[in-house]
Amino acid sequence: MSGSVSPLAPKTFAEMPALRGVRMATAAAGIKYKNRTDVLMMLFDRPASVAGVFTRSKCPSAPVDHCRQNLPGGIARAVVVNSGNANAFTGKKGREATRLTAEAAAKAVGCSEAEVFLASTGVIGEPLDATKFAGVLDELAASATQDFWFEAAKAIMTTDTYPKVATRSAEIGGVKVAINGIAKGAGMIAPDMATMLSFVVTDADIAPAALQALLQAGVEPTFNSVTVDSDTSTSDTLMLFATGAAAGDGQAKVEDAADPRLDGFRAALDDLLRDLALQVVRDGEGARKMVEVTVEGAENDAAAKRIALSIANSPLVKTAVAGEDANWGRVVMAVGKSGEMAERDRLAIWFGDIRVAVEGERDPAYSEAAATAVMQGETIPIRVDIGLGSGRATVYTCDLTKEYVEINGDYRS
Amino acid sequence: MSGSVSPLAPKTFAEMPALRGVRMATAAAGIKYKNRTDVLMMLFDRPASVAGVFTRSKCPSAPVDHCRQNLPGGIARAVVVNSGNANAFTGKKGREATRLTAEAAAKAVGCSEAEVFLASTGVIGEPLDATKFAGVLDELAASATQDFWFEAAKAIMTTDTYPKVATRSAEIGGVKVAINGIAKGAGMIAPDMATMLSFVVTDADIAPAALQALLQAGVEPTFNSVTVDSDTSTSDTLMLFATGAAAGDGQAKVEDAADPRLDGFRAALDDLLRDLALQVVRDGEGARKMVEVTVEGAENDAAAKRIALSIANSPLVKTAVAGEDANWGRVVMAVGKSGEMAERDRLAIWFGDIRVAVEGERDPAYSEAAATAVMQGETIPIRVDIGLGSGRATVYTCDLTKEYVEINGDYRS
Repeated sequence: MSGSVSPLAPKTFAEMPALRGVRMATAAAGIKYKNRTDVLMMLFDRPASVAGVFTRSKCPSAPVDHCRQNLPGGIARAVVVNSGNANAFTGKKGREATRLTAEAAAKAVGCSEAEVFLASTGVIGEPLDATKFAGVLDELAASATQDFWFEAAKAIMTTDTYPKVATRSAEIGGVKVAINGIAKGAGMIAPDMATMLSFVVTDADIAPAALQALLQAGVEPTFNSVTVDSDTSTSDTLMLFATGAAAGDGQAKVEDAADPRLDGFRAALDDLLRDLALQVVRDGEGARKMVEVTVEGAENDAAAKRIALSIANSPLVKTAVAGEDANWGRVVMAVGKSGEMAERDRLAIWFGDIRVAVEGERDPAYSEAAATAVMQGETIPIRVDIGLGSGRATVYTCDLTKEYVEINGDYRS
Repeated sequence: MSGSVSPLAPKTFAEMPALRGVRMATAAAGIKYKNRTDVLMMLFDRPASVAGVFTRSKCPSAPVDHCRQNLPGGIARAVVVNSGNANAFTGKKGREATRLTAEAAAKAVGCSEAEVFLASTGVIGEPLDATKFAGVLDELAASATQDFWFEAAKAIMTTDTYPKVATRSAEIGGVKVAINGIAKGAGMIAPDMATMLSFVVTDADIAPAALQALLQAGVEPTFNSVTVDSDTSTSDTLMLFATGAAAGDGQAKVEDAADPRLDGFRAALDDLLRDLALQVVRDGEGARKMVEVTVEGAENDAAAKRIALSIANSPLVKTAVAGEDANWGRVVMAVGKSGEMAERDRLAIWFGDIRVAVEGERDPAYSEAAATAVMQGETIPIRVDIGLGSGRATVYTCDLTKEYVEINGDYRS
C-alpha cells in the first residue's frame, strides 16, 4: 500500500448494505504484509450461480487456471482471495497451493472443491505458502457475517490507496434485488480485462448461463475499457455470483440473459461495473488526473477502441496530461501509430469543449489559454473525430507521473 | 535540449572524416530555439543515388510526404533539415511550407525540386514558417564544406543530449569507400522505424534500387529493433545517399543489391546503422540504463520480436530496471500479454548470465543478490527462452525514469 491516498479518491464511500445469501470474513495471515488483513473468505449460504471472466494473458496464475476449470460447473459455495502473492508462474508448487487451499475451504464449508473459487494478487513468481491458509479458513467460515463488504475490499488491496466498493439495486419481475461489488487495482492494469480482481454478488435468482452472458456483455465498456499502464496482469479475475435469495420474495428464476425482465438488472449491473472500473482508474498508480478518451467517426467500433487505447496507453500523451500541457500533437501521433484507418486532413481533436485541431491542422480559433484551462482540471476529456465512419468507443485512463515510476521502481510491488 | 548529458553517452565521439561528393552547412534560423543551429543543408556535388525508409504512422508529416513523392526519381542533389518544428499535422500550410522550402533549395543549388529531400523534427501541429529558410539557403549552399559532420549532427538535435555520429569504411571491388552517418532521437521512438531522423552518405557508386534494398534489409535489426517509449513519430526518416565519387578511383557502379562485391559494404553499413540506432537508445529521454531484450525459442522470428517488444515497451519492466529491481515476474507478465504462443511451464528467463526462472517457476538456485548485481550494471541483458521453436529476436530499449516524465511533462518538447 502506498502512503498517501490518491487525489482522485472518492470523497465518500458507498454505504454497503448486507446482501442476502452471502457472508464474509477476513484474516491477517501474514502472507506478505504485516499488520493488515490479507485473506478474504466469501461464503454462500446455498449454492450460488457463478459467472467469470479472466485475464487473456498466456501465462495466467494458478488460481485463474483453477477458476476456469471450475466455472463450467456453474455453482459456487466459497471464494478465497489473498493479497501479497499472486501465485503466478509458480509451476507445480502453484497448482499444489491452489489444490491445498480449495481442499481446506471445501472442508471448512462442507462443499466440493469444484464449488470453491480462488484468486491471488501480489508479486509474481514467488511460491505461495498455502499452509498459511490452513489455520484460518475454518475460523473464517465460522465467523463470516453479511455486513462486511468494506472490510472485504480492504483485505484484497495491494498498491491500492483506497478500497473500491459499489452497490446498486434493481427490480426483476417486480421483486427488488441488490448488487454489491468490490474491486482492487492499481497497476498492471490493461484490457482485456483491466481489473486485477473484482467480486460482484447479487441476491437475484439467475441461472449461470444467463449470468455469464450478462457479465461478458457488461465487462466490454467497463473493465475492458480502462487502462492504467498497458500492462496486462496474469491474475485478472472478475466474478459475478447470484445467491438466489430473492426467490424467497417470489422472484421467478431467470434462465435467459435476453429475458426482458432483466432489463433493469442489466442496467444496474453495467452501472456498478462502470463505477468499480472507474474507481480502479482513479487509483491508478501515481494517478493525479483521470483521462476520458472518446474516439468517434472511426471505420467501426473496434477500430475506434484500438485508436482510443493507442492514445490512452501513449506515454507521451500521459506525461503531457501530467504536465497539464495541451500537447494535442501527441494525440495526432497516437492516432497515427494505431495502425487504423485515419486521414490526417479529416481529423478533429477536442480537449474538453475546446476544439484544438480540425481538417488536418490547428484550429483557426485555437487558444492555448483555453486548452490549458481544460488540462488543469481533474478529469481531462479528449475527443477525436476520425471523420471516416460511425465507429465509436470511450476508454478511461490516468496520467503518467513520477510517482508511477517511484511506486514501480522503488520496491517490488 | 536537456541540461545534462545522458550517463549512457559515448565517452568519445567518432572522428568524422570528410566524405567525397557531399558538403554541408548549418544555420541558426530561429525556428524555435535560440542561440543554436536549427537548419542543416546537405549538398551533393553531382546527382547522388538515394534510398529512404519512413514512419509507418498514418498521420505522417508534410516532409515525409514530400520525400516519399520524390524517392522514385532515385536522385538527390540537396537535403534540408530543420529542428524545432516537425511540420506535422499542419494541413495545407504544411504542404505549402515544404513546397516553398524545396523551391528555395532547388534555386540555391541549381537543381529540380524533385531532387530536394526534406525533414523536420520538433513540435507537432504548429505551422512552420518556411520564409525563415528563404534567407539562409543561398548562403548555406555557398558556404557548405565537406568537413562538417559533427556540426550537422548538432543542428538536428531536439531533446537529444549528445550528437550522434558514426563512420565506417569498406571495399567494393578492391576500391576503398567510406560511409558516414548522423542521427537524432530522443523520444517518440518506436519501431517501425525508431530513428526520428538519420542521414547516411557513402561515396560508393551504387544504383538507387540496390541502395534501397540494402537500406531496407539493414534497418530491420537496427532502427526497427529499438524502442524508447513505444510511441511512433510522425516524422521518422532514414535516408541513404551514394555520391558515386569512388567511381573516380575505378569503382565500377553496382546495380544489384545481391552483387557479391557488396558483401563488405553491406556489413559495414549494417554495423553503422546499429551503432547509430544504439546511440539513439542510449540517449532515450531520461535513460540511465540500456536494456537488451533477447527472445529465443519462439514460434518464429516475428513472434520472437513481438514478445521482445512487449517486454521492452512494458512500463512495469522499464520502471523495475530503473529501480534496479530484478523483478522477473514482470517479464513473465509481458510475455503473457504479448498474445504470442507461450507455455508457462516451458519458459526460462535470464538476467545477464543469471537464470532466474525455469520450467514455469523460480530457478531452484535463484539468488536475489546475484540477480540484483546484474541490475546494477549500465547495460541490462534480459533473455527469455520460450521453449517452443527456433524464432529469435533482439530488441534494445532503455529504462523508464522520473526524468522521462519530467522531460515530457514539464514542457512542450
